[in-house]
This record gives sequence, structure tokens and C-alpha cells, in this order.
Amino acid sequence: MSRSSGETVTFADVEAARERLDDETVVKRTPVERSTSLDRLTGGEVHLKMEHLQWTGSFKTRGAYNKISRCVEDGIERFVAASAGNHAQGVALAATRLGVESTVVMPRAAPQAKVDATRGYGAAVELVGRDFQEAMAHARDLVADSEATFVHAYDDPAIVAGQGTLGIEMYEDLPGVDTVIVPIGGGGLISGIATAFAELAPETRIVGVQAEGAATVADSLEKGGPVTLDSVNTIADGIATGGVSELTLSLIEEHVDEVVTVTDGEIARAVLLLLERAKQVVEGAGAASVAALLGDGLALDVEGETVMPLLCGGNLDMTMLQTVLVHALTDREQLLRLRVRIDDRPGKMAEVSSVIAEHNANIQTIRHERDAPELDVGEAYLVFRIETSGAGHARSIIRSIRDHGYEVVHINA
Amino acid sequence: MSRSSGETVTFADVEAARERLDDETVVKRTPVERSTSLDRLTGGEVHLKMEHLQWTGSFKTRGAYNKISRCVEDGIERFVAASAGNHAQGVALAATRLGVESTVVMPRAAPQAKVDATRGYGAAVELVGRDFQEAMAHARDLVADSEATFVHAYDDPAIVAGQGTLGIEMYEDLPGVDTVIVPIGGGGLISGIATAFAELAPETRIVGVQAEGAATVADSLEKGGPVTLDSVNTIADGIATGGVSELTLSLIEEHVDEVVTVTDGEIARAVLLLLERAKQVVEGAGAASVAALLGDGLALDVEGETVMPLLCGGNLDMTMLQTVLVHALTDREQLLRLRVRIDDRPGKMAEVSSVIAEHNANIQTIRHERDAPELDVGEAYLVFRIETSGAGHARSIIRSIRDHGYEVVHINA
Repeated sequence: MSRSSGETVTFADVEAARERLDDETVVKRTPVERSTSLDRLTGGEVHLKMEHLQWTGSFKTRGAYNKISRCVEDGIERFVAASAGNHAQGVALAATRLGVESTVVMPRAAPQAKVDATRGYGAAVELVGRDFQEAMAHARDLVADSEATFVHAYDDPAIVAGQGTLGIEMYEDLPGVDTVIVPIGGGGLISGIATAFAELAPETRIVGVQAEGAATVADSLEKGGPVTLDSVNTIADGIATGGVSELTLSLIEEHVDEVVTVTDGEIARAVLLLLERAKQVVEGAGAASVAALLGDGLALDVEGETVMPLLCGGNLDMTMLQTVLVHALTDREQLLRLRVRIDDRPGKMAEVSSVIAEHNANIQTIRHERDAPELDVGEAYLVFRIETSGAGHARSIIRSIRDHGYEVVHINA
Repeated sequence: MSRSSGETVTFADVEAARERLDDETVVKRTPVERSTSLDRLTGGEVHLKMEHLQWTGSFKTRGAYNKISRCVEDGIERFVAASAGNHAQGVALAATRLGVESTVVMPRAAPQAKVDATRGYGAAVELVGRDFQEAMAHARDLVADSEATFVHAYDDPAIVAGQGTLGIEMYEDLPGVDTVIVPIGGGGLISGIATAFAELAPETRIVGVQAEGAATVADSLEKGGPVTLDSVNTIADGIATGGVSELTLSLIEEHVDEVVTVTDGEIARAVLLLLERAKQVVEGAGAASVAALLGDGLALDVEGETVMPLLCGGNLDMTMLQTVLVHALTDREQLLRLRVRIDDRPGKMAEVSSVIAEHNANIQTIRHERDAPELDVGEAYLVFRIETSGAGHARSIIRSIRDHGYEVVHINA
């Protein structure tokens, strides 16, 4: 996957991509929304660029369409890609709109919703391999055995130029913007955007964000070449690549001002904040730009600035959403687990349950535990899982149970 | 709460409200987004009016600001309201912006997030009563004991005229729109919107939507006066009022073309569809307009039409979101519960677990059951809760466990 040195992307390439993408049914102009909640949290003026509302739910169509359209001009008519996520849908939509064939190899365990969506946009999907690397190997084999052209997710100047069209759009949305924040996976997105801003507004600060469990840019810049990770560990699967490429690293080095990392905890908090305050469903990779504003003490300083975090994708797996929610609700004691020690005889459970009912709190589950060593014979624990309206409500429920003479402990699992 | 007959709302009232609301920091113009997923499902051209992105997360500020601003012109400076939800935040923001005092009575079990938000917008919040009726009674007492003016959530011409500004906006967003779909709780929103359309585009079909467990309009129209329900039952708490008023009923009778009902199942499906496809967090009441398009066989027919469902609120409780998700994931077998019969000895659990692991499926929980009557001595059940990528993945996991010689049953709880 190494590239011939000297290959790069210029602003003219990005402008040419924009001409190719001038069709609202392929790429639409995505809205910008102000967030007063984020203003208060950051001291800046926050404008969210809502690219997660792009067709297919991410920016990936921009690059894929530019690449495939350039190849079609050269007479190529069959395309292959490997992806577990958004690139799959981008390639499928782009190929279909250009009237050519695409085959996307996805790992066997890819979420059914993404497989269905990719097929829905018109690609032939092959489910091969236990992980992305195995799917990628199969895709390479398909290309070797055929006339098809491989569409890489980021290591390609045509892909980078396509993603760069988003940079022009963000500049037009808010020409004087002080800071732009862009998630980094393979680096194609930020390379393109930074190339656009370097020409249009070189004074704008371009900040890249990586997930802590998949961060390679700082090391790569230091060592002067892409550092790859054998394994990555983050909930933001959209930016969980093993590294950037020569091409994207050199563009990052040239045009990006700063690269920061965020933890999975910060990403989850950003996903939740966007759900609750901005009413937007944004995937982990897409929320990383907002996560960079939320770190405790280590957050990016944007006090007094205009700042535009890019929400680059919205394909949040519902299972992941469910995980984020359970953690958040437990943190805030809206999901409360209480262990109550009782005499194990009729009527006790009814009594404790009615104390909880008096507080208008809903009981999700009740479990009995009888075999804890500290229990006397004839005693038991009742473990309640309760929905509350928050910490104050939780405290008053616990107090009432105690007032009825029970020993009660707030547990976390 | 009955009104003197003859009191009504005209288009001139709505226009006057619009003049008063001409300030982006009080009411912003909310965007309209196309939904190709809904196009495919309905055969129409669907334009979602995203009023859930309004300040405070709902349309309520429009009416509250119009009402309070008119009263302030008359020298009134103190306001009281009762609400468990969006009206609370609307009144708080409107009063604060107009430099006057507001007190909002909320039931004690109101979600902490809504209480915090209402205080955050500057209202004094009093937590009184076990339910909305008790909170309302206390609010009436406060008004009786003071110089304050009560701000009703819908039974007031100034409130209706304020909500009607949304009708002008929707008309301007898509002047030739064939059908507009609006949720009905107390009827203030649809009365205002229908009044605006009656003047601007009388040929546009105005459809109201009620939750099945809180539907009173059809009966009220038949009986010629508001029918009230003692108890309502729907997940869409924003439209779970006990009835409409004389004022709103007469405007509905005059200007609304059709009123349909939707079930909680349809509302939940609409919430999920908006999350997954439109990437929007919309509360049950706000999603009811989309639910009207999704009913099996009984859906509103919009084939070949342009249609604008109003997403009127986004304050979806995270606990409710969690409930909707668990149901949806279980339906699609992305959350799979399997009961496997084993010989109760070391190594069996490890064997079954590794079969599941080979399919890259994540185990959430495992539970043992040993006391089912059909089990032989020395046998046990293992109950697994597993995350899958969907029904196909679930089937192949079940097949593999069977191939290893185990009896396995897919259970629902």
C-alpha cells in the first residue's frame, strides 16, 4: 500500500472534484447548526457542521464519487472495495449513480443494517473474512483476478480531493472561522479539508482528532513515516484504522496545525451530549470532534473563538447506542441498582416495592440472592433495577427504604 | 377551563405573533430535510420539518413568547405555568427574554433533565404533586394568591396564534405542499398551523395525529364539545393531554381536514426510523406525524404527494430511548436470548461460549437455571444474552450450537 513519493493533492484537484460532485442527488450541502449548550461548555461560539446528514450518513460518498467518476472518464467500469462501514455505502452509491458495477467485500460479522444499506445502494456485497484485514485480502484477490479497479478508503489522491470538497463547503458556511476540528482515521478527510483551507483561509486553525486507542499521527510525524498499529481499541470504529498513509501523512504535516487525542469515555460523552442537546445521532468517529472540546482540563481551548467541529458520520450502531445509554443512565443514577437486605418471608418484597412505587419510580427488574456468606439463615437480598428521574430522586428513594428499617446499598452491577 | 364562546384566532393574529417573534435568539427558523427512506416507504416526497431543533427542543416557545409578550405590553410582570415537559421550558425562556418573572410548577417525579433545563432558562421551579393534575391545581392556587398571570399550554388565543407562526414558516418552506401532518395534544399547535394554511394555501390537506391511548378529537367533533379522558395511556407524553378545549376544537372543526390515530408501536417504530435513517432524536409526540405514515395498511395515503410531517419536539427522555431500543433490537434479533441445555459439569459453558465467540458475537450476560422441572438431575440451562448483527447472524449461531449437539431454544425474555 505504499505510494510513489511525490504524489500529492492540490487545491485545483479539490476544485475539480467539486465540479464533478455538483449534483444534489449524489452529494447534498449539509446544514450547520449553532449549539448554545456547547457555547456554554467551551466559552467559544460553536457551529456544528452536520455532514452526518449527508446521503449514506457520512462524507465517504464525496471521495468515492470523485474517484469512480475520474476512472469512468478513463473507460473503467468495474470497481471493488473493502469496508466494514461507511466507505462501503459511499462506493455503492457512487458507482450506481455513475452506472457502473461495484463489489464491496465486508467482514462476515458486519452489522446487518450496513450490509443491507450497501446492497440497497446497488453494490454486490461479498461477506468474507473474520475481520477487516481478511476482507481486504479477498478484495485484493478479486482485483488481481479481474479488470476491476480497487477503491481505497483514503490512500488515493482522488479520494482525498473528493473529501476536500467538504473543506470548501465549511469555508463558505463560515468564512472567518477560527478553528475547524476534524476526526482522523486514515487521514483522507483531514488531508482534503486542510488542503482546501490552506488556499482559502490559511489563518484558520485546523485541528485533527484521533481516538486514543488508534492514535498514530504524532508518532508518524516524529518518525517521518506512517506508523501502523497491529491492533486498535476504540468505540469509534469509523476511525479505528491501523494508521495513515504516506500521502495523507505528508498532507497532514504540511497543512494541519495540531493533532489531539480523545478517550473512549470522552467520545461516549460527546455522543450523549449530541443526542440530548443537539438532537443528533452521530457515530463515535463523528463525535470525536466534539469530544476534543469536552476533555477535563485537557480540552482544546477555543475560548472566544468561532469553532466548527465536523460531525462526519451518523451511522451509529443501535447496539453501540444502547451501550452508551446504559453507561450514561447509570452514571446519572437514572438507572439505579439497589440491594436491600430482608427477612426472607412473604410480604417483604411487596413492602419494599410499594415504598419505591410511592416515589413514582419504575422497577425494571427484581432479583433474589440467598447465598451471600454474610446473610443469616432466613435472610435474603433483593436486588432492584429502578428507573429514576436522576440523583435527587434516587437519594430520596434510598432514604425512604432506610426509614422503613431496611439495610440498603447502592451497587453498580 | 371553559372559554367564553366566540373567542377565536384569525390569520391576522398569527401574522402579529410573527412580528413579535422576529428575533433569532427567541425563535429560530428550523430546517427542512428530505428523507429518501420515507419516500420509499410511502411513495410520496417527504420533507421533514425539523422543529425539534427549535430552542428548548420544541415549538412551545412560540406560543409562550407571544402570550407573555402581549401581557408585558399590558404591564403584567409575573407569570405562572404548570407543565411536566416542553411548555415549562418555553415559558421559562420566553419570560427570561422579556425580562419578567416566571414560576413553573412541575410534578415531583418530572425528569431531572427537564427540571434542570427549565431552571437553566431562568424560571423558578416548584416541584409539587404526584402528577400533572396536582401540579396544575397548585399553579392555580399560586395565581389566585398573587398578581401573576397563568400561561395555559394551549387553551388561549395568544398561545394558538404563536404556534401558528410555524404554519407560515412551513408554507414558506414548501409553498405547494399537498399534505401537512401535525400531532395533536391539546390542539393548540394544529389550530394555529391550520389557521395559517387556511389563509395561505386552503388547498393543502391538514392532517392531525393523536395517540390511540389519548384520542379525543373524533368523539369531541361528534358530540360537539370537548370530550375529556380521565386517564391517558401512551409513550408520547407530549400529546398525552386529557382532551382539547372549546377554542381548539372549534378551530380544528373549521380548518383541519382529517384526524387519524396511531398506536404506541407505530410511534416507537417512527422514533427508531428517525434515529436510524434521519439521524434525528425526536420524542414520541414529535414522531407521531411520521408514525401516521407507517401503519400497516391503515397508513395515511400520500402516494405521489409532497408531504411535510412536523417533528414538533425532540426532548426524548433517555430512559424512554433505552426502552425503544431494547424492543427494536430484540425484534430484529440483534439482541438474542438463547437457552441451551447442558450437562452441568466443568467445561460445558466454555464450549458453548467458544462456539458463540467463533461467530464474532458478543455475550452480554450468562445465567444458569437449574430448577426447571423438565431438567434431569445433573442437567442445567444456560441462558445467554448475545449481541448479533441481525437475524441471519442469529440463525447461524443457533445452527452451530445445535451442530455441537446441544438443545437450544430462542426465548423472548
